[in-house]
Amino acid sequence: MKKYNTKTIPRATAKRLPLYLRNLTILDSKGIARIKSKELSEITQVPPATIRRDFSYLGELGRSGYGYEVAFLIKVFSEILDSNEENKIAIVGFGNLGKALANNNFRRNQNLMITCVFDNDPAIIGQTIAGFYVYSMDDFKQVIQEKNVKTAISTVPSEYAQEAIDIVVNSEITAILNFAPDRVEVPANISIRYIDLTTELLTLLFFDRNYKKTSLAVTS
Amino acid sequence: MKKYNTKTIPRATAKRLPLYLRNLTILDSKGIARIKSKELSEITQVPPATIRRDFSYLGELGRSGYGYEVAFLIKVFSEILDSNEENKIAIVGFGNLGKALANNNFRRNQNLMITCVFDNDPAIIGQTIAGFYVYSMDDFKQVIQEKNVKTAISTVPSEYAQEAIDIVVNSEITAILNFAPDRVEVPANISIRYIDLTTELLTLLFFDRNYKKTSLAVTS
Repeated sequence: MKKYNTKTIPRATAKRLPLYLRNLTILDSKGIARIKSKELSEITQVPPATIRRDFSYLGELGRSGYGYEVAFLIKVFSEILDSNEENKIAIVGFGNLGKALANNNFRRNQNLMITCVFDNDPAIIGQTIAGFYVYSMDDFKQVIQEKNVKTAISTVPSEYAQEAIDIVVNSEITAILNFAPDRVEVPANISIRYIDLTTELLTLLFFDRNYKKTSLAVTS
Repeated sequence: MKKYNTKTIPRATAKRLPLYLRNLTILDSKGIARIKSKELSEITQVPPATIRRDFSYLGELGRSGYGYEVAFLIKVFSEILDSNEENKIAIVGFGNLGKALANNNFRRNQNLMITCVFDNDPAIIGQTIAGFYVYSMDDFKQVIQEKNVKTAISTVPSEYAQEAIDIVVNSEITAILNFAPDRVEVPANISIRYIDLTTELLTLLFFDRNYKKTSLAVTS
């Protein structure tokens, strides 16, 4: 299924893949079908030679002087980012945000599946809400093991996040997406990524104030 | 109040501020108090000379050979990104995600305030839910004008997003944060930014699979 061996991609290149992918999808939405490394460099602030070297690890993606097909790059980079392996996901905190995630359930990607949800509110534990049985955080470790879940999304507010994450990392979970932007402590073998909506909104407003009509793409 | 004139910051530098800020907060959370441009370069993939030049626009942020104080950089960059102006925000689509945003209401930042919420579901229009009166999308333009709102957050699913955004851009809204990742068409004078949770999750899992224990920070 997969044509690219991600193990052979240098870590620095891999780090730039999401940046490339994000900007290429913006270019695609603007109807731009082809782009040269120099132009992509202006948008991403990655030097053109670095872009060409990065892309060379991924096979024959373009021709010298001709540029790269945007749609093809998006396809290749999306495939690299996606494992084509099933990822079972646990939701920690089943309030409005947890329910929104469960309802959506990453249906655009058939490999991502929310499998179980947890809360510590006695009023909802043991009930089935929006199609999901709500487990107690007391049973987190056991349920995660039984269902073979390795990924968790925490929607617990900052003030209670560390307490919840401590339970999460004491299980077979290896990767956490955290909607509370305050940094929490996790062991070195746990991958964690934060969604900071306040910073996303401030960045939008910053560009709206200062760079009106001049910004082709925002690279952060 | 503000000590930095963002108008004097080159656009390319401004584009990198969110990237710097995001990685600096990760460093801070790891207890790293001071960083040299060369080290920050390794994490952000921005050349050290570019980092030093970027920082030079912002005043005296560090000393040669000594490095930069991480906490101080975070403070300065946060201040630049934040306008210290009040931003009134409209929520478009008042399902679970809209309610989650309204409940949280960016309370960490006193300048960001959700002021009104909209939906097109007759079952909730005209009701007060979670403290917010739900307006009809039919009244969007008028309510936005009366309340002097310039920013909208759309939680409308991709299949209906363009229809909703068409109403939003036909008002005094200038900036849109869109939780549906599919690109929508907006006039050139509208700023738009997308939150793509599927890509965020795939990026987390990509690094969890391939770069376990080796990644200091993810720069995308």
